[in-house]
Amino acid sequence: MKFGVIGYGYWGPNIVRNLAQLEGSQVLAIAEISPQARTRAQKAHPGIKVVASATEVLTSTEIDAVAVVSPVWTHFELAKAALQNGKHVFVEKPFTSTSAQGEELINLAAQKNLTLMVDHTFLFTGAVKKIKQLVDDGALGPLYYYDSTRVNLGLFQHDCNVLWDLAPHDLSIMDYLLKGDPQAVVATGQGHLNGHEDVAYMTLYFPEKVIAHVNVNWLSPVKVRTTLIGGEKRMLVWNDLEADEKLKIYDKGVQIGSREGVYELLVSYRSGDMWAPQLEQSEALRQEMAYFVECATTGQRPFNDGCAGLRVVRMLETADESLKKKGALVYL
Amino acid sequence: MKFGVIGYGYWGPNIVRNLAQLEGSQVLAIAEISPQARTRAQKAHPGIKVVASATEVLTSTEIDAVAVVSPVWTHFELAKAALQNGKHVFVEKPFTSTSAQGEELINLAAQKNLTLMVDHTFLFTGAVKKIKQLVDDGALGPLYYYDSTRVNLGLFQHDCNVLWDLAPHDLSIMDYLLKGDPQAVVATGQGHLNGHEDVAYMTLYFPEKVIAHVNVNWLSPVKVRTTLIGGEKRMLVWNDLEADEKLKIYDKGVQIGSREGVYELLVSYRSGDMWAPQLEQSEALRQEMAYFVECATTGQRPFNDGCAGLRVVRMLETADESLKKKGALVYL
Amino acid sequence: MKFGVIGYGYWGPNIVRNLAQLEGSQVLAIAEISPQARTRAQKAHPGIKVVASATEVLTSTEIDAVAVVSPVWTHFELAKAALQNGKHVFVEKPFTSTSAQGEELINLAAQKNLTLMVDHTFLFTGAVKKIKQLVDDGALGPLYYYDSTRVNLGLFQHDCNVLWDLAPHDLSIMDYLLKGDPQAVVATGQGHLNGHEDVAYMTLYFPEKVIAHVNVNWLSPVKVRTTLIGGEKRMLVWNDLEADEKLKIYDKGVQIGSREGVYELLVSYRSGDMWAPQLEQSEALRQEMAYFVECATTGQRPFNDGCAGLRVVRMLETADESLKKKGALVYL
Amino acid sequence: MKFGVIGYGYWGPNIVRNLAQLEGSQVLAIAEISPQARTRAQKAHPGIKVVASATEVLTSTEIDAVAVVSPVWTHFELAKAALQNGKHVFVEKPFTSTSAQGEELINLAAQKNLTLMVDHTFLFTGAVKKIKQLVDDGALGPLYYYDSTRVNLGLFQHDCNVLWDLAPHDLSIMDYLLKGDPQAVVATGQGHLNGHEDVAYMTLYFPEKVIAHVNVNWLSPVKVRTTLIGGEKRMLVWNDLEADEKLKIYDKGVQIGSREGVYELLVSYRSGDMWAPQLEQSEALRQEMAYFVECATTGQRPFNDGCAGLRVVRMLETADESLKKKGALVYL
Repeated sequence: MKFGVIGYGYWGPNIVRNLAQLEGSQVLAIAEISPQARTRAQKAHPGIKVVASATEVLTSTEIDAVAVVSPVWTHFELAKAALQNGKHVFVEKPFTSTSAQGEELINLAAQKNLTLMVDHTFLFTGAVKKIKQLVDDGALGPLYYYDSTRVNLGLFQHDCNVLWDLAPHDLSIMDYLLKGDPQAVVATGQGHLNGHEDVAYMTLYFPEKVIAHVNVNWLSPVKVRTTLIGGEKRMLVWNDLEADEKLKIYDKGVQIGSREGVYELLVSYRSGDMWAPQLEQSEALRQEMAYFVECATTGQRPFNDGCAGLRVVRMLETADESLKKKGALVYL
Repeated sequence: MKFGVIGYGYWGPNIVRNLAQLEGSQVLAIAEISPQARTRAQKAHPGIKVVASATEVLTSTEIDAVAVVSPVWTHFELAKAALQNGKHVFVEKPFTSTSAQGEELINLAAQKNLTLMVDHTFLFTGAVKKIKQLVDDGALGPLYYYDSTRVNLGLFQHDCNVLWDLAPHDLSIMDYLLKGDPQAVVATGQGHLNGHEDVAYMTLYFPEKVIAHVNVNWLSPVKVRTTLIGGEKRMLVWNDLEADEKLKIYDKGVQIGSREGVYELLVSYRSGDMWAPQLEQSEALRQEMAYFVECATTGQRPFNDGCAGLRVVRMLETADESLKKKGALVYL
Repeated sequence: MKFGVIGYGYWGPNIVRNLAQLEGSQVLAIAEISPQARTRAQKAHPGIKVVASATEVLTSTEIDAVAVVSPVWTHFELAKAALQNGKHVFVEKPFTSTSAQGEELINLAAQKNLTLMVDHTFLFTGAVKKIKQLVDDGALGPLYYYDSTRVNLGLFQHDCNVLWDLAPHDLSIMDYLLKGDPQAVVATGQGHLNGHEDVAYMTLYFPEKVIAHVNVNWLSPVKVRTTLIGGEKRMLVWNDLEADEKLKIYDKGVQIGSREGVYELLVSYRSGDMWAPQLEQSEALRQEMAYFVECATTGQRPFNDGCAGLRVVRMLETADESLKKKGALVYL
Repeated sequence: MKFGVIGYGYWGPNIVRNLAQLEGSQVLAIAEISPQARTRAQKAHPGIKVVASATEVLTSTEIDAVAVVSPVWTHFELAKAALQNGKHVFVEKPFTSTSAQGEELINLAAQKNLTLMVDHTFLFTGAVKKIKQLVDDGALGPLYYYDSTRVNLGLFQHDCNVLWDLAPHDLSIMDYLLKGDPQAVVATGQGHLNGHEDVAYMTLYFPEKVIAHVNVNWLSPVKVRTTLIGGEKRMLVWNDLEADEKLKIYDKGVQIGSREGVYELLVSYRSGDMWAPQLEQSEALRQEMAYFVECATTGQRPFNDGCAGLRVVRMLETADESLKKKGALVYL
């Protein structure tokens, strides 16, 4: 499969490196506006054609698939043109700037019978795969909550708020793990520097009393990447910054008793062992790119397809609507 | 100063122990409904009278001051009777079940010229004292946010939700550190076991774009007591579970630049040293009780007076109103 | 069983508190030289007789058993007198200043048919009990090493070096866990302040290639209490400063392969899950005191008897001999 | 400066990558015995000549300098040939297998007026540079001890014991930081798998009562890279596995008092703030290679020259001698 890659900023080099090393794929061209980035790309990959114009990549007859790794507001036009030119498309997350754009791309891909995949890389990590397995096997029991903190002194984005920058990771993971779509969203936040929210909080109400929460912040002195997931039978802590033991599963839970008096507890706790499973170590992006090539080749529909990307964009749109009102409940 | 203590459950023993050891104070009587708790109290303090009826304490002519350490729904009646009987009153937090009750107690204390103090213990810890000093000295610069996570597999309360149980700590600290009162509150949450929210999130909008957030949870497999405070000049992390180095101050901040192009950053970061100051080690509750005795003796108005307690109750009431609507913006 | 306790310094209060609360035991008297400590003892335990002279305790006809919690150089004379007066004896660790003293006490106790127990408290903790079980069950496989770091800005002792102060904990645990007695010892160290070694290292060669090492230091800026134990099948880390998850067991090991070439590895590693078992939570000293009462009552020989105490003293004596030569190999 | 690199195993790729990116240096050829490694080298660096024979590199007239990154037992012959052929030499640590070899190389380099540098990379890290500055500025006061733990489930070496594999890092750092050479060494250890010690401990007595200790272990379930350095005025902990805050400096120390009685302490502690300085972030190896080019160009004598390498080899030789006797004191 012959690839063109559009965008060689922060994430593009990883896409190119993985596609270059992957059996069965080849990068023919990289399109990038910034001259400095083009120089970097050419130095690192002397054998790949590096151009300024995306059109050259989009219209090349040699190219089978296009990876769109440019800013989010450019995704729609680039992905649309690629699909129109008969190319399979891999789009960086978040999928599009609006859900209407996402729907149009999904329809276009279906019409043209092309693979459309959104880069929800975290779904290919050893940690998320293991959590998915635990949830599906019922090891955690019915879920109570999903609570993520994703903060650091991060790069300020000037074309979006901190939710659009950091929350898509968590939203795509929730979408993957939790049953059903969120029913309503509340988002609060504050911008201190350039008009966009740099601190934000998002609550999502999922079916069956599952509550999800995301804490994102560009102004934290320390980096935190911690997710707590609580279920009736077991609970887990996923600390993505741990070198080993990223995932700890606690054999802890609650039991409801009967009310016996004003000072009696209704609920008792069960405490037990903790277990940190060995996780798969291979690079998530490598696996995702291989999966893209496989889907595009076989016509298999990826689970991280345009619809998955669209669901995440809808959550973000709803959050923006809530944010505008400083935290109203907005139904999806 | 001769004390009567009402309630000998979880916190009462600490109040009694500290009052007993404090120079200038003496505990004459403990009132407690539960026979088992009375037995424990008598064993631990053979010299103190232990009774079943609060009235005996409230009406004793020997007693100068009453500590109310019973469930929150009993605070109002007990504190009111104590004040009416001319006793200084120390009330466990949260102050009262409603703001109307709080106002009545404040007025009554003023009328009777009695000291009314709410047990905001954290304000007497070495960590909060140091943070207060840093904020007041301008070491952090103008504040951006206050973000607290206070979760664990905690005791379920059956007469309140997790916000009323765990958030008062943070709300009293915010009230102490941040300028002005919160202007609006958004609270979200979910109850899974007995009808009360056991997972909840609360955003408070303070003046001058300061945003505060509290994450409280009775169903977490791990205990977390971490607060991040960000300012323009410096930021800090307060981890109350650390034995040493509870407080880490980061010489990190942000600088706004001019927009130079679509790919340029508007904001740059400043990175520097971290510093963990030596904190005062003496027991917070001991200091608070000494301060109560001092205020009651001299007539000095405590900073953690009924009004401080009332401000916290108002935040909780507002949060409850927001919670009922699953997360509406409610102005105070 | 009626107890006299000699010594009310750092550890004595814990002994008295536990004996006072234990069913079937009672403290009749405390002997303590320091007037300040006597005042503290009397305040905390109004019902117990507090005296200056140990003789009063040792000769009391009402007392069945004596706990010797005074400095190590006083153990021998006090324990000897207690045994001669027909009392069961519980001695703080290290047992005695010399092995000759230890032997004499053991013989005397045997002759008089009295219980002689050495306070190896750590053997009664949940962590050590679990490790003992893992070792005995073969869960770790044949052991390779025991490696302990026990350092902090500790109290300087002026009557012994840091090995006699801190290493007995580890030596008593090794004695409990490892097969056989150490065959030889090497100890190195340095004194910087008052002539006694304040930094010291001790290697013990046990049978079957098991090597043990202890790192003790009174001059460390941070407190560390970490022990690594490696076996062929599994390895563990015991961090006694962790509130939860003190013990982590790693399903990791090594496999020996054949030599295949100059760049090939002879040994490969096996990597697997980590597991932190729930540990027994009850206070170790409480259990040890109950065990003492049981042994003294039934005549059962405790596993932490005088002989166990003597084995630890022999290791310390041998270490001192090695230290004097700045680190010679000394056989036991 | 035109480089030939001999050895493309674990560390060689880092040397080549840094030399390739460095201004003023160029890699002309890589020599490597293993065909697989040659294939990897050629793929990663299409522009560099990759050969099987070291001789081709050693005798090339185009090459100015040779980096020897092969197993330690090959260092002497390769470095000697390179020097004889008039090339500057950069040698991986440990410098040579014996001190006699090291001396011969030093003499040869002096005779030929060539630069000979030993790869003590850690001396170029931000952490060690900062520690060096603190020591030299007297910020720590006179030093008491240097105590390093460097353990993990590491790659077994079949041509040396764990001391030769892991301790050179610490020995080169001690050599850099501490005044004078060690006067005597004691090493203990045990081999469990292939005859070589896989667990070892090394004590070094430096002048002025400075004691150093290294704990190295190929069989640890967890990776530890922690060094404690204690001085009279301040103490520090360097944890190289921390992403940020690798270095923590404690304003803690000791004060000697007078003896006031049998129970009085002779020494008191001073406790104060902790401080984690911002460290230089640039890659250590990059800086070291630039320093090599600079020294070779200007004739400046590097501080990590052959003599520094030789001092480390002497410590290892002495340790081996001590190890053979299971831990005798051996004077250097």
